Amino acid sequence: MRDLKRLQVLKIDEEHEKHTEDEVVVEEPLEIRVNGESLSVTMRTPGHDFDLAVGLLFTEGIVRTRDEIGTIAYCPDEDQPELKNVVNVVLTQAGRTIESSRRLWSNSSCGLCGKATLEAIRQVCRPIHSAISVSHDLLYSLPSRLRDGQAAFERTGGLHAVALFDAQGNMLLLREDIGRHNAVDKVVGAALMNGCLRSDTVMMVSGRLGFEIAQKALMAGIPIVASISAPSSLAVELANDFGMTAIGFLRGHSMNVYSHPERVTA
Amino acid sequence: MRDLKRLQVLKIDEEHEKHTEDEVVVEEPLEIRVNGESLSVTMRTPGHDFDLAVGLLFTEGIVRTRDEIGTIAYCPDEDQPELKNVVNVVLTQAGRTIESSRRLWSNSSCGLCGKATLEAIRQVCRPIHSAISVSHDLLYSLPSRLRDGQAAFERTGGLHAVALFDAQGNMLLLREDIGRHNAVDKVVGAALMNGCLRSDTVMMVSGRLGFEIAQKALMAGIPIVASISAPSSLAVELANDFGMTAIGFLRGHSMNVYSHPERVTA
Repeated sequence: MRDLKRLQVLKIDEEHEKHTEDEVVVEEPLEIRVNGESLSVTMRTPGHDFDLAVGLLFTEGIVRTRDEIGTIAYCPDEDQPELKNVVNVVLTQAGRTIESSRRLWSNSSCGLCGKATLEAIRQVCRPIHSAISVSHDLLYSLPSRLRDGQAAFERTGGLHAVALFDAQGNMLLLREDIGRHNAVDKVVGAALMNGCLRSDTVMMVSGRLGFEIAQKALMAGIPIVASISAPSSLAVELANDFGMTAIGFLRGHSMNVYSHPERVTA
Repeated sequence: MRDLKRLQVLKIDEEHEKHTEDEVVVEEPLEIRVNGESLSVTMRTPGHDFDLAVGLLFTEGIVRTRDEIGTIAYCPDEDQPELKNVVNVVLTQAGRTIESSRRLWSNSSCGLCGKATLEAIRQVCRPIHSAISVSHDLLYSLPSRLRDGQAAFERTGGLHAVALFDAQGNMLLLREDIGRHNAVDKVVGAALMNGCLRSDTVMMVSGRLGFEIAQKALMAGIPIVASISAPSSLAVELANDFGMTAIGFLRGHSMNVYSHPERVTA
């Protein structure tokens, strides 16, 4: 399946540590063009890309009826023709252009195409060198302490939380937001301003560990990022390449370590 | 608390139907400006907005150190001075500007400020007039059928699913994606192209019901949107104003109806 990818993972529970293979959801950038002009880059799971392109044009009010959709096709990448990450929609109304104020950036990345976006991000990121190591027990304690720190979630079920811990497991900061990426930015911004943005910290997030979350943690130089939920393929690749330890499914007394397990000690 | 809002809800379970008040998470647009120039609009939960602004500048590589941050202040809205939805960050390096290619749109909305964004969306949306009504039992059956239709989630826990049902509960379409908004766009795009975008349908989403999801469903003219999880304040306001039935916490044999309960029948 195009939407799942097998990769190496270190599965840890109370009895075992096992290097094995596991499946994660594929996340890749899709650039959507209209009449050849770039409209949006969104991080998506490949599959049904033409539906996604048409749906975005429709829900943004750029097209109003099916009749306005002419042809839809992938634009081949000259270097990597197997990549299908750019879709062009030609509208039937000749000469119609999208005014630049209608350009959309579906996530906080920017750039002219998905590939350029990823390359631009890689150019501004620096590898993480950190000698921090944390024990299984310390990691196991983080999810409940994240929940304890959440004021609003208990009552509404609607807020993501992100917290920063030091290597002894002390909580340095916790921020909540309806958007996971906003909660990460709030933590990073507060840490930058109060001087606790250090290379010996662990970030714990309440939701999935997607590319955007991994990228923000990487920019902040945070060496270990843990989630109670699943990572994406692109988040794991970024973490692997830049020396960040990515942990998923941190629940009870078990977890999956997807990259740089050397920082996790018994 | 600024991050929670009380509003009217119809709570339904097997024994009772009760009009009551409930709390939902507040979602509002925040425009982030750098030296007075608009950089990004993000849908966020109010609170720690300066942290969010600084964090975004840092994680996007626009500032590299704390010293580059000069002053941070809210820009008052002339019409509604109580609104604190625009933050301006003045950088210490005089005359520094952000090239336009660095402008970020943190969600798929666009516009020059959050308020303008919301008004622009309201101008392109049309009220929903639909005589569809669905029973409690039909609604109760949707979450498990959404799960049954999901191929990848069982194995990875990492994909959102969105499905479209007709008034008899037949599943018309199901799409999955790591991004909830992408899954909605895939459903809407497919429905537009195959002719099943009708005013007698129910959309079921696997995650939260935030503003962006409600706005996309509204653009598609879908009269009932149901979620297994929590809605946001802005999603409920939009649904109320435009005649859409918003249902949250649809689990087992209970649900919360946040707007237009006339379409839900015993």
